[in-house]
Amino acid sequence: MELQEPYYAVIFTSTRTEGDNGYGQMAVEMEELARKQPGFLDFESAREEVGITISYWENLEAIANWKANVDHRVAQRKGIKEWYSWYKVRICLVEREYDFHQNKQK
Amino acid sequence: MELQEPYYAVIFTSTRTEGDNGYGQMAVEMEELARKQPGFLDFESAREEVGITISYWENLEAIANWKANVDHRVAQRKGIKEWYSWYKVRICLVEREYDFHQNKQK
Repeated sequence: MELQEPYYAVIFTSTRTEGDNGYGQMAVEMEELARKQPGFLDFESAREEVGITISYWENLEAIANWKANVDHRVAQRKGIKEWYSWYKVRICLVEREYDFHQNKQK
Repeated sequence: MELQEPYYAVIFTSTRTEGDNGYGQMAVEMEELARKQPGFLDFESAREEVGITISYWENLEAIANWKANVDHRVAQRKGIKEWYSWYKVRICLVEREYDFHQNKQK
């Protein structure tokens, strides 16, 4: 389905270093903080061999503001120093979407 | 970083029904099958409360061909009948990307 208003996804894929080192607490705080930012739309996260965190935003300006947020910058620096052995960030324009709900269709 | 050649991400976010019912085996087979398709680039997956599977493709034609693949269509039908209580598919144009490797920067 074509979107009436395209929006953006930031895909953050990562592998962790060993040990928690404050990571779990930071992850909770960063999600809470992201949800308060202007232009925030949604947040999805799961980790097994790799961690995938996707945040959804109204536009590129909202993403730039979130990247520049002071508390988020502290977390980004600790991420590079301590938490992640690897990560990759992809900024994506969501062009189409569709969904399925069991109760709607059964 | 701007990409020299933009590519596409298909974000598949889902919640499972209870029980395996053949889901685990299908998931392995679908990843193997996806990796053999023309235009396939990469595959990332993790599941906790929600499952996030992202496949990366050279262009929209490759995504359309993968969606129409006969074995994949069987899995899609079983997904709706048995495996998923909810899912959402987003087709995204990857506009920018950057990455971090611990060993490169430390």
